[in-house]
Amino acid sequence: MSKVIIYDTTLRDGAQGEGVFFSAEDKLRIVKKLDAIGLDYIEGGWPGSNPKDLEFYRAAAKINFRHAKLSAFGSTRRANNPPAEDKILGDLLKTNTPVVTIFGKSWDLHAREVLKVSLAENLQMIEDSIAYLRQNGREVVFDGEHFYDGYKADPDYALETLKAAVRGGANALVLCDTNGGTLPLEAVDIFKRIKKEFSLPIGIHFHNDSGTAVASSVMSVQSGAAQVQGTFNGYGERCGNANLTSIIPTLIIKLGYETTVGPNLHLLTEASRFVSELTNLQHDERQPYVGASAFAHKAGTHHDAIIKNPVTLEHIRPEHVGNERRFLLSDQAGRSTVLNKIKEFFPETKKEDPQVQKLTDNLKELENLGYQFEAAEASFDLVIKKAFNLYEKAFTLNGFRIIVEKRGDLPVLTEATIKVGVGNETEITAAEGEGPVNALDCAIRKALLRFYPEIADINLIDYKVRVLDENRGTAAKVRVLIQSADGKNSWGTVGVSENLIEASWEALVDSIEYGILYKNSDEETTKSNISSK
Amino acid sequence: MSKVIIYDTTLRDGAQGEGVFFSAEDKLRIVKKLDAIGLDYIEGGWPGSNPKDLEFYRAAAKINFRHAKLSAFGSTRRANNPPAEDKILGDLLKTNTPVVTIFGKSWDLHAREVLKVSLAENLQMIEDSIAYLRQNGREVVFDGEHFYDGYKADPDYALETLKAAVRGGANALVLCDTNGGTLPLEAVDIFKRIKKEFSLPIGIHFHNDSGTAVASSVMSVQSGAAQVQGTFNGYGERCGNANLTSIIPTLIIKLGYETTVGPNLHLLTEASRFVSELTNLQHDERQPYVGASAFAHKAGTHHDAIIKNPVTLEHIRPEHVGNERRFLLSDQAGRSTVLNKIKEFFPETKKEDPQVQKLTDNLKELENLGYQFEAAEASFDLVIKKAFNLYEKAFTLNGFRIIVEKRGDLPVLTEATIKVGVGNETEITAAEGEGPVNALDCAIRKALLRFYPEIADINLIDYKVRVLDENRGTAAKVRVLIQSADGKNSWGTVGVSENLIEASWEALVDSIEYGILYKNSDEETTKSNISSK
Repeated sequence: MSKVIIYDTTLRDGAQGEGVFFSAEDKLRIVKKLDAIGLDYIEGGWPGSNPKDLEFYRAAAKINFRHAKLSAFGSTRRANNPPAEDKILGDLLKTNTPVVTIFGKSWDLHAREVLKVSLAENLQMIEDSIAYLRQNGREVVFDGEHFYDGYKADPDYALETLKAAVRGGANALVLCDTNGGTLPLEAVDIFKRIKKEFSLPIGIHFHNDSGTAVASSVMSVQSGAAQVQGTFNGYGERCGNANLTSIIPTLIIKLGYETTVGPNLHLLTEASRFVSELTNLQHDERQPYVGASAFAHKAGTHHDAIIKNPVTLEHIRPEHVGNERRFLLSDQAGRSTVLNKIKEFFPETKKEDPQVQKLTDNLKELENLGYQFEAAEASFDLVIKKAFNLYEKAFTLNGFRIIVEKRGDLPVLTEATIKVGVGNETEITAAEGEGPVNALDCAIRKALLRFYPEIADINLIDYKVRVLDENRGTAAKVRVLIQSADGKNSWGTVGVSENLIEASWEALVDSIEYGILYKNSDEETTKSNISSK
Repeated sequence: MSKVIIYDTTLRDGAQGEGVFFSAEDKLRIVKKLDAIGLDYIEGGWPGSNPKDLEFYRAAAKINFRHAKLSAFGSTRRANNPPAEDKILGDLLKTNTPVVTIFGKSWDLHAREVLKVSLAENLQMIEDSIAYLRQNGREVVFDGEHFYDGYKADPDYALETLKAAVRGGANALVLCDTNGGTLPLEAVDIFKRIKKEFSLPIGIHFHNDSGTAVASSVMSVQSGAAQVQGTFNGYGERCGNANLTSIIPTLIIKLGYETTVGPNLHLLTEASRFVSELTNLQHDERQPYVGASAFAHKAGTHHDAIIKNPVTLEHIRPEHVGNERRFLLSDQAGRSTVLNKIKEFFPETKKEDPQVQKLTDNLKELENLGYQFEAAEASFDLVIKKAFNLYEKAFTLNGFRIIVEKRGDLPVLTEATIKVGVGNETEITAAEGEGPVNALDCAIRKALLRFYPEIADINLIDYKVRVLDENRGTAAKVRVLIQSADGKNSWGTVGVSENLIEASWEALVDSIEYGILYKNSDEETTKSNISSK
């Protein structure tokens, strides 16, 4: 089996993506996670580009890495600076990382028009920057910036820049498609020509501006690339970098390459979500291998095939990458899909039962109104229980009133009053909150606590608002998704309304009702519906 | 120049994507849009899979297509049915589309385990389903489902299924990688072997489960594929289909293929956004060519290079696909970026001016709090005007009070009272609304109307809520983005707070202030900041 080195630049090139912001603390947590799953190199940032990165490297120096080598990233020295007096190289050495990665200009246009130096001076900057870092005991990776565009413009000069890096003592050469415009066949062709010229390991670094970064990376490895650079979830400037969460499983599962990620591949989905969460970006659920949709089946005909034999519709086993298969409910799903779901609770149900048709119709109607049960399985459970008349409300609402008040420049004050009935008793109470929904949430919990002490364990862990018809402005219909947890399990509920408060209330009520039902019923009956996350 | 046929299946295979729902009306609007930009074939749906699709085909029959041919999609007949008595084929003919696309099983495993028919019967089903549709005057495209997996399992049988389609009279053969697991080099290798065997046009249809659907599509066209199937924005089951908004510009701009989209390529970004809007999904801003991030530059060093020469960092000119270049403000951007923005309004500003540093610091602080000005350039304009002391508030808020009330099962009632001051006068008024923000929006407009009649023209056209720290539940911090328009121009504003009402109020105030300032100032001064959308 051939080996391939995985080089991650999520924290450096990934951080140049729009909307991507890491604190020094975020970076430390991500480095540890990436080390734990077995990546070979982790590029931590560009010290000197901002103060957070120096702070990060100071703290990172204390990590005991299991396997990964930490790298500091920067450019070659500036023109006319002797290396020992150059601030960029000095900052790189200050990080005390075992590896330093520097980029130099492999495209004559950039040397001339951006750096405004002679082509000979550019070669000298590459050579003696690397030599200086090597003299200081660092392993040096040389990134040939814009290598492919440079090679297309002037192949001899692009090659000269790599030779200068070799003269300086570089440990590896990396060909970068910095603008992301090179297509796979051309990229592989250029790679093969370069590989012939050097005995050093050659790596590749693609951007996704043509939508082909993963393909170019994989195909280059198939042509002998020793190192593949990319980012988790494909974060990066413009359209992003080559997505390692796609490349790694393809290399391991489909092409049989050996990497230290191999034994940890089942942790990939969780690591990918972890990075999304710290990035504060929506996880791209359509991502190959690690998205929630990657093994989600919607078409009725596909459900049928999957149930007969999963190989018929899945290119790999989802558990191989720590993901899972899901069946989606939608107007494309026929009665057999609905039946399949119902059978989780009522195994004796038959396709011909009138409730099955009634429920299918009911679901289609709710979906037309904007409900989605894909992330709200607890609400779906309650819909089923209602359809089968197995549902008793835990409480009735007499009413609530929320007051939001602002005076001059003072902060907004929010309070909610609520009156509920349980059995023959009623309770009226009030609570303050940070915003109207939070106040309502606090008030309803307070009102129900003496009837249902178990709700003290239930917490709201996630609250999402999606405006459905955004072009109706503030009168638009909204969908609220709430995720609740009791420390052991978590469950999702949904509400839809033109009124945010009404939608939130609906999801809140489902969340509490479901929590109470679940805690008080035989856990066996409901557990299949609850994801342990 | 070689020609290539573009076949769109957004409305059929795209609709199998998680979270993708089209009404019949949505479908009609999308068909017209896709026809207008010059696509060759548009697959409208699977009549019979749900009633919406039949309704759609009835209405679509009245469209005068400029260029595209509409296609109805379905499967071969069921086993043992004579074609003329088969409901699937009957439904397809009822659509009266000039083209019918049917899929048949090219993988022996599917024929045996899913259809549960003999391999010979499967071939017969393909042949006489196509023959029957041809006898009824239809152009027939044959999709070989799971062709690549089938070919890998049993190349002879996979080939036989295509030969059966040819015997039936198919007008084109399409090789489908239905599970999306085939990698580009293997896909091209198989394609070339098939192409040698037939004189008919051969198309390809890839799914993105390996992250390589675009590459496999483009490389197959480079190997002689006559037709490329895909969806707008890559919508589709699981990880989606091959993304036509990436494939089309690559084929036209980079590889010189001739398509009828060519002259309309500058409409691509708008069409892609149009499809996202009707799909009610967030537009994927990282998408190649058509995402808002595709030509957005964040790194300070890149700004510098772009200003010197755009070719240094852009693989194509953004206007070629109707997109535009953007410079992002972030903690990676230096003072020169901020200066560049300020100069749009105050050309005489120097980098050394103390306000430039003050503003840079101020922006970093606001970004740390959760503000993002990337989609809120009007709020950014106000931040600059404040920093330069060029900003006078249009009104002062004395206070507001919002009451949200629910009694039993009755709908929620919402009303807002507001008191504002303009000059020496005050106004107090109230309004009802669909939700607290809508009520507040109505009340503030009502209160200000007699002072600023021009706000009658300003409408809120888009309202987005993003929960920033979702794991804090209903007490999470939210970011509100508002897009306003006056019929000619539109502008975005932002607000951030733990309290949704406070965040919305902030964005509302900026929206109104900006609208009033802009209407009453020299339009020349502000117009560069307003996008004409």
